[in-house]
Amino acid sequence: MTTPPNHAKVRVSKRAHYDQETIHGILDCGLVAHVGFVLDDRPMVIPMAYARDGDILYIHGAKAARIIKKNKSVPACLTVTHIDGLVVARSAFHHSVNYRSAVIHGHLRDVTDPEEKERALVLVTNHLLPGRWDEVRPMTEKEFKSTGVLALEIEAASAKIRTGPPVDDDEDYDLSVWAGVIGVTQTLGETENGPRNIVDDVPPSIEAARQRFND
Amino acid sequence: MTTPPNHAKVRVSKRAHYDQETIHGILDCGLVAHVGFVLDDRPMVIPMAYARDGDILYIHGAKAARIIKKNKSVPACLTVTHIDGLVVARSAFHHSVNYRSAVIHGHLRDVTDPEEKERALVLVTNHLLPGRWDEVRPMTEKEFKSTGVLALEIEAASAKIRTGPPVDDDEDYDLSVWAGVIGVTQTLGETENGPRNIVDDVPPSIEAARQRFND
Repeated sequence: MTTPPNHAKVRVSKRAHYDQETIHGILDCGLVAHVGFVLDDRPMVIPMAYARDGDILYIHGAKAARIIKKNKSVPACLTVTHIDGLVVARSAFHHSVNYRSAVIHGHLRDVTDPEEKERALVLVTNHLLPGRWDEVRPMTEKEFKSTGVLALEIEAASAKIRTGPPVDDDEDYDLSVWAGVIGVTQTLGETENGPRNIVDDVPPSIEAARQRFND
Repeated sequence: MTTPPNHAKVRVSKRAHYDQETIHGILDCGLVAHVGFVLDDRPMVIPMAYARDGDILYIHGAKAARIIKKNKSVPACLTVTHIDGLVVARSAFHHSVNYRSAVIHGHLRDVTDPEEKERALVLVTNHLLPGRWDEVRPMTEKEFKSTGVLALEIEAASAKIRTGPPVDDDEDYDLSVWAGVIGVTQTLGETENGPRNIVDDVPPSIEAARQRFND
């Protein structure tokens, strides 16, 4: 899983990482993934909920499942990106973005084995809200059958990370132009009770989600 | 540009929108887009800086430009997603995410006309930092030549939006299970001065960026 795909080699970047810990770290604190696949010779990119189980990623969505089922296995690319800052340089050329992204290549397959499918649904639910599966009423057979889950076996993966201040051309540091970084953060904030709520206290999964996702 | 692509018709959704104002609104306040294209029969999804000029999207990146140049025009999908909340229901099945996403289909072409390329570079710079182009030193000829810009002419576009509280099965409202929404916000926050900065005051483009992107 730590081998870059062949076409990644067209660019050798000091920002590239292929170690598992870095890649898993980026995947494990992402809210949604952007999943790309080819349909009728056209690329499609759709935001989807997901979860990781070792070297398998599970994605959840009735739409993609319907598309994928026609084939047995289709190539896909799953990308998770965190934006950490806008990098403001003294020249337009050196402007940049501080970010962490993981790009995963593999093949999607429809998850049909009931045990694997249930495990995947638990993982996807608990990815966004750790522990939530055990807080809610059990899933019915009908719900289980009508929910689509796809598995992406990780065949190649890479991460890109940019951190730090702008790097300007040496002669530009004398210019009267401000340079620096604007921090960008994503925050899970306050809760809003849903209608007809008979419980006042928010469950532990809410705080667990804040701890997982807040920058 | 407001016509859905054929394959979008496989799913009729109450969350789908095809009006230009909605789609432009989502595009205009996104920090990065996830751009998908096909390379060696494999889908690739890469986060990229971008800007909109009417019905053309410009994307910026040396890597993609090198890949695309071999061909004259390649099909691509550009997706911008905003996450607004986690929707916490009484059953796992009804959990969801409040989000706004725009999915744009078209063909990428390398921008070679110098006038269009300069306009595109101004737009991409000013998308993230409104007005920044005029705050920095002018771009050199060498920088201009080594920067890649791709144009995506919008051929089909759609938006998906989910808002509001969870919608549970009627009988589940009696359960002692908390339900509601956790708000998710993205914030451009404090600035950090870069090294060797001889200017203390941050320029107007910083506050303009906060106004454009902060939820």
